[in-house]
Amino acid sequence: MSRHDTICAIATASGAGAIAVIRISGEDSFGTALLIFRKNGKKLEPNDIEPYKAYYGQIIDTVPEKKPMIDDVIMTFYKSPHSYTGEDSVEISCHGSEFVKQKILELLCIRGCRLAEPGEFSKRAFINGKLDLAQAEAVADLISSQNEAEHRIAINQLKGGFSNELRDLRSKLVDLTSLLELELDFSEEDVEFADRTKLYELLDTALKHIGKLTDSFRMGNAIKHGIPVAIVGETNTGKSTLLNAILGEERAIVSDIEGTTRDTIEETFNIEGTMYRFIDTAGIRETSETIEKIGIERTFKKISEADIVIGLLDGTKSVKDIIKAWKDIVNRVNVLKQELIIMVNKSDIMDATKMFTLNDDYLDYMKSTYEKNIEKHGGYMTDEYCYSITGMDLYDIHGLLTFSYMSAKNPEDIENLKSSIRHRYTDIPQIDGNTTLVSNLRHFEALTHAKESLEQVKNGMDNKLSADLLAEDLRQALYFIGSITGEVTNGEVLNNIFGRFCIGK
Amino acid sequence: MSRHDTICAIATASGAGAIAVIRISGEDSFGTALLIFRKNGKKLEPNDIEPYKAYYGQIIDTVPEKKPMIDDVIMTFYKSPHSYTGEDSVEISCHGSEFVKQKILELLCIRGCRLAEPGEFSKRAFINGKLDLAQAEAVADLISSQNEAEHRIAINQLKGGFSNELRDLRSKLVDLTSLLELELDFSEEDVEFADRTKLYELLDTALKHIGKLTDSFRMGNAIKHGIPVAIVGETNTGKSTLLNAILGEERAIVSDIEGTTRDTIEETFNIEGTMYRFIDTAGIRETSETIEKIGIERTFKKISEADIVIGLLDGTKSVKDIIKAWKDIVNRVNVLKQELIIMVNKSDIMDATKMFTLNDDYLDYMKSTYEKNIEKHGGYMTDEYCYSITGMDLYDIHGLLTFSYMSAKNPEDIENLKSSIRHRYTDIPQIDGNTTLVSNLRHFEALTHAKESLEQVKNGMDNKLSADLLAEDLRQALYFIGSITGEVTNGEVLNNIFGRFCIGK
Repeated sequence: MSRHDTICAIATASGAGAIAVIRISGEDSFGTALLIFRKNGKKLEPNDIEPYKAYYGQIIDTVPEKKPMIDDVIMTFYKSPHSYTGEDSVEISCHGSEFVKQKILELLCIRGCRLAEPGEFSKRAFINGKLDLAQAEAVADLISSQNEAEHRIAINQLKGGFSNELRDLRSKLVDLTSLLELELDFSEEDVEFADRTKLYELLDTALKHIGKLTDSFRMGNAIKHGIPVAIVGETNTGKSTLLNAILGEERAIVSDIEGTTRDTIEETFNIEGTMYRFIDTAGIRETSETIEKIGIERTFKKISEADIVIGLLDGTKSVKDIIKAWKDIVNRVNVLKQELIIMVNKSDIMDATKMFTLNDDYLDYMKSTYEKNIEKHGGYMTDEYCYSITGMDLYDIHGLLTFSYMSAKNPEDIENLKSSIRHRYTDIPQIDGNTTLVSNLRHFEALTHAKESLEQVKNGMDNKLSADLLAEDLRQALYFIGSITGEVTNGEVLNNIFGRFCIGK
Repeated sequence: MSRHDTICAIATASGAGAIAVIRISGEDSFGTALLIFRKNGKKLEPNDIEPYKAYYGQIIDTVPEKKPMIDDVIMTFYKSPHSYTGEDSVEISCHGSEFVKQKILELLCIRGCRLAEPGEFSKRAFINGKLDLAQAEAVADLISSQNEAEHRIAINQLKGGFSNELRDLRSKLVDLTSLLELELDFSEEDVEFADRTKLYELLDTALKHIGKLTDSFRMGNAIKHGIPVAIVGETNTGKSTLLNAILGEERAIVSDIEGTTRDTIEETFNIEGTMYRFIDTAGIRETSETIEKIGIERTFKKISEADIVIGLLDGTKSVKDIIKAWKDIVNRVNVLKQELIIMVNKSDIMDATKMFTLNDDYLDYMKSTYEKNIEKHGGYMTDEYCYSITGMDLYDIHGLLTFSYMSAKNPEDIENLKSSIRHRYTDIPQIDGNTTLVSNLRHFEALTHAKESLEQVKNGMDNKLSADLLAEDLRQALYFIGSITGEVTNGEVLNNIFGRFCIGK
């Protein structure tokens, strides 16, 4: 596996299509491609080729005894360094037949190419300095992007927005190191520079910057994998029916038997361009059955991880039972951090007069819940709003205290619920071309490690540690930041990253 | 749906890939594509464009308030008439993200393109005289080709090989018509030209030519859909187990219960580049069950349609029973037209001494079968070969009279069987770039109709019909031939043909 090999791969999606593209990259790409190509029956030489021009011609099986034509193709030649990989490259646009694609690859391999490893084109682009590591990862994210938000994050990262922020951060840390090294130079004289304030200041700015990036991961991750929406409630309230109705397909098994759903089922669904990950959980009830118990414990975990919780109540139960189930849900939800949408299901078969009683009782209960929260977390409450301790508007109480009746069998109710999910959860930032959100776990972990190292530096300074020990932690932080863009890296990390790419990228 | 619209579509296979290609064709393609494209931040004008050159740049959402970058792309411009469709065309090579592809299509549609109908690019190529109808159909066949033989048929048809043969045929028919018209010109004088011999001669050549083409359909069709191989035998001889073993997957349900397989199961499988269509049939036995009866009748039909019949016998049965089952199979097979491979299954658990008795009894039976066949169809037999009435070598008797023991559970036996299927069925012509095989049902039907019309002409001549009546039938034949390449056609036929293409082709 030399990086000087000429590699080839199918670059378009698998399966039949009108057109497929085969990509070749490496020193010998022009020569190898031209061996199996004829224009008006004539073989061209690499020197004849005008780069960035589309050549129409035929792929020919050059084994002497057969020479049949394989396909009509368009070949385009890209001259190093002005290509995706930075090397000489060729793109063959052929008919999208499985046989034709494989045959052309076979002919190229007979003539000296080798099949590319997954991500090898992007890896070469990285090695040749066409992309940094974060940008190369953005290519993979861009390809798998399915909605506008994901796409914007990837494009921004690909354009180098994230890399620039990291460069910023890195230069702050380099400033810090310089200051420390100044001390180191004089360390034999046992001098401690008076201006540690400056050090603290720089450290705090860097920590704040990293904190902003790591904080964005929850959002970045939600955008990439869907904003988690847990559907919770007692057994047999219609959670699975609701999931199926939202997805528009029979995803979860539905029955009248309590405890039908044991595994949590997750499915992503796009509402107005935002991806949500709906989680159907096991119904909450007292049970002695082991499997069901495990399912219920998972439910609690899923509730705590969700950004939105849909609490489903069974409208056919007694008011007392409904309120009890309701309290159970509210107690599980962190109303300061999670959006709670309470739906009373089975409105099609419930007693209408029950609705009034429910409203009043619930209102009383919720108000007391908020009061308890304020007691615990601080803040204050007016008739309409609940505020946090900093005075930040937390909830429109009037908005939150309402709840809706629905029937999971009524398509209109489902549409209303979707729209309310979309409009209640307004945390989604308007991601324009300049918003940096960390959406990659590797980046998040590197940033977290860097943060830890910087906190060590801070602790060290508090404890009057010597400059060389502080510098050690600083170097660690710099290492972690550098690992994101690939300024420092190793083969295993690269293989790990590019091994997850598709072949042909 | 005007043919002057500028159309766009994704031309590569659906799903995520490294690259996707979007195709635009029509008068406004350059202008429309350039509206959403920026090279180094600048908009280009159609007049700036050098055709057949790859332009690297960005797709930009041009709605004033957003303008975010959608993707890095390569755009290539094709100038009429030197493009696939014959019109001005643009190809956009973008990242293969589902979101990006849809977004670019959306932007193009906002700017005046419309989404292409299935096959509309090829239809335009046909309308603009870039391809005839048979060639356009070859494009679809080429895209779906999965093996060498299919691919060769399609390439030959695409290169115009089939169209040339039809042109040949057509000119023969035109000669015929001229001769007849000569008679028509003089018809008032009630002259009949003496030289009807010439007419007969021309007619016979044309009929022979058409006959050759229609005869090739069985082979062309077999290559396109797989050479049919029926697996037959009594119930519970292990047919489904054998099918699964050949395919290497659990395709058919296997059980010890007799009559498990009711529906015939068909799966194609590639052996050394040739596609076979294996057909697992219901086991043959006397039954009163209605569903099973239907299954057995289908089995008989499938046997008669197969080119190769694998007769499976149960080696654990008594010699008498095995020979009886054997005869049942042989009686169903047309040994003059079909290849029969007899396999005695379950060799792993059968009594070895039984094998000798079987060999002798079978030999006697088969010889008498051949004798009967010769009696019926003519021909003669030596010790080694069976000849047809024309002296053509029909069977290597020594070769045919052997049969094999196998266990469907032994992978080596399965490999041997595959290889024997491949080598026993040597009818497959060496399809080079010049072999014309009719593989399209529409073509076959048109040729069959043309043949019928020509036979009418012949009958008419025999019955001394007047020249104008004969000319009428000739015109019919010309019409059918012309319909294949699209010299005569109508909108409905075109919609039918191109409607079966994929979008983007």
